[in-house]
Amino acid sequence: MNDERPAQTVATLGEFALIDRLAGALAEVGAAAAPDLPGIGDDAAIWTPTPGTRAVVTTDSLIAGIHFQLDWTGWRDLGHKALAVNLSDVAAMGARPRLATVSLALTGGEPLDGLLELYRGLGLLAARHGVTVAGGDIVASPERLGLHLTVIGESWPEADGRLLTRDAARPGDLLATSGPLGLSAAGLKLLIESGRVAHSSHDSRLIYTLQGTTHDYLAAHHRPEPRIAYGRALVAAGVRAAMDLSDGLFGDLAKICARSNVGARIDEAALPVPASLRARFPADWLALATRGGEDYELLFAAPRVALDQLRARYAAQGLPAPALIGEVLPMPTDGSPITLRHTDGSEEAIGGGAFDHFRG
Amino acid sequence: MNDERPAQTVATLGEFALIDRLAGALAEVGAAAAPDLPGIGDDAAIWTPTPGTRAVVTTDSLIAGIHFQLDWTGWRDLGHKALAVNLSDVAAMGARPRLATVSLALTGGEPLDGLLELYRGLGLLAARHGVTVAGGDIVASPERLGLHLTVIGESWPEADGRLLTRDAARPGDLLATSGPLGLSAAGLKLLIESGRVAHSSHDSRLIYTLQGTTHDYLAAHHRPEPRIAYGRALVAAGVRAAMDLSDGLFGDLAKICARSNVGARIDEAALPVPASLRARFPADWLALATRGGEDYELLFAAPRVALDQLRARYAAQGLPAPALIGEVLPMPTDGSPITLRHTDGSEEAIGGGAFDHFRG
Repeated sequence: MNDERPAQTVATLGEFALIDRLAGALAEVGAAAAPDLPGIGDDAAIWTPTPGTRAVVTTDSLIAGIHFQLDWTGWRDLGHKALAVNLSDVAAMGARPRLATVSLALTGGEPLDGLLELYRGLGLLAARHGVTVAGGDIVASPERLGLHLTVIGESWPEADGRLLTRDAARPGDLLATSGPLGLSAAGLKLLIESGRVAHSSHDSRLIYTLQGTTHDYLAAHHRPEPRIAYGRALVAAGVRAAMDLSDGLFGDLAKICARSNVGARIDEAALPVPASLRARFPADWLALATRGGEDYELLFAAPRVALDQLRARYAAQGLPAPALIGEVLPMPTDGSPITLRHTDGSEEAIGGGAFDHFRG
Repeated sequence: MNDERPAQTVATLGEFALIDRLAGALAEVGAAAAPDLPGIGDDAAIWTPTPGTRAVVTTDSLIAGIHFQLDWTGWRDLGHKALAVNLSDVAAMGARPRLATVSLALTGGEPLDGLLELYRGLGLLAARHGVTVAGGDIVASPERLGLHLTVIGESWPEADGRLLTRDAARPGDLLATSGPLGLSAAGLKLLIESGRVAHSSHDSRLIYTLQGTTHDYLAAHHRPEPRIAYGRALVAAGVRAAMDLSDGLFGDLAKICARSNVGARIDEAALPVPASLRARFPADWLALATRGGEDYELLFAAPRVALDQLRARYAAQGLPAPALIGEVLPMPTDGSPITLRHTDGSEEAIGGGAFDHFRG
């Protein structure tokens, strides 16, 4: 049967019917939606902070053509990722996410089915982390789709208000990550290389099939997993300095160095890059792992004793062991704060690596 | 002296220098900026909720060409308004605003001076209400400027967790507003009519001068004042049902009716529309006041005794007296929930009036 009926879009459905349908998509996947989804309920969403906690708030936006390509990204993955990058910021603070608001900037041409899938992807991740989707708004954006999310969290009940920050790294601390580096950037690279194929489908499952063995890279790129439990365990172990890796190891580490007024040395040999990735990208793996971005693993600094304790704790909880990647040093009097020690023992000063959205 | 040097833009300055400059603009006007303005501090902003309070969160986006015209709107006014519309939502909950995050979607072509002015306008309003500008992010938006703000507030310390909601109106309550209606819509109408003049300048002061006596309307449109103190006083007086007027009286009242499961009658003769506005727009004043939108006054429902008490309280605090505009009725079994009683005593059923961003 060939159903030629055109797909229903935002413009044909209208704003208020859309809001009802989006609320339905959340309910369908078991996500707790406040009664005040965009335009319904009250002027603001209400929640009760847990007494004695400190609260955190983070905002991240994803713009079509800049942060994602609908040609490459399935709608459900997009919903997952839009929330995941915000939850990752909460994880990096060692906090518990509680509430998300979603502001949709829509062209009006978006297919209803796509937006419902987006909300299902977002809702599934929210439900898994006990996050309430608590409203937001919908605005017209004539040229391109934009997703603007804000997530509010609070310190874990057992943490006594303690959170992780970027300014608490101290010389002598070891540097570690919660997981492997470079997978997401490898996935993006493959997507760009396979442009012709990817453009022929809006279904990321097809891309996965076509790419065969590269599934892990694409999954890392499309469906990053916020390290909520990992961040919680860091706080419990007494770690104080952390952030999440969104702009690439060197770019993000530079932010810890600047805020903590320290330097750092990274050991190339210690970088947690899977052998399969090194083999697939022999010329690029180091760049993918250190400047690629969107790993959404946690980067943290802690004294050796705390890390030993962490290993035991994480093993007991089934969390991956921290990957030691280097050491925090005193801030150098001149030059780059970051040094890369290559496998041959030579050391390279690392220039500024943070991506500037306006200077490329 | 004719300085031909081209204005510095986001693209020439770069993202990170821009962030520093924006933080400086906030400091300059006395606004409390968290150390974590976009891209500087931590992954998330931190604050401590006041014990025993309930928290509220609201998001509102403003998109160039949709919600504002840079040809008509000064940058400083734009910063004021972007925050004001969010603070108005907090006021409507009867809550105290505490924290704002700002996500800027920039084309790269924005003049630095403009963005600094935007932050000054935003910062001045934030400072006046004790709101900390606590970060956000900056993303590229190739075609048009977008401002995506989130404001977090909490119930006032004396309120014992009480907030205002849309679902608490009861038949027999009187309906009232915190101030006049239609001024903002009149201002917008004048701006559209004077398109040629307005387009010749980015300086809204010039427009004010040219328009002469219409200053009040333009100010109402460009610089709405969130009714924070008014909302606080409503809670203190025991009022329970309120919202802010952003989509026009009929559209917003319809939301209270739907959520509270009530009907309502509005008295045309009682509408708080200044005589000068009625005189300037003899054919349109009623439409401007009831369907115009962007008044950002509070609309609330309360028993007569509470309103009498409010009058005394407001007079003592120097707040404007509530303007009685009608009455809450039982939800009719069929037809429109809202009736307009004209000055001749005839009654008109009011159709749905909420503006749909995608259906016009």
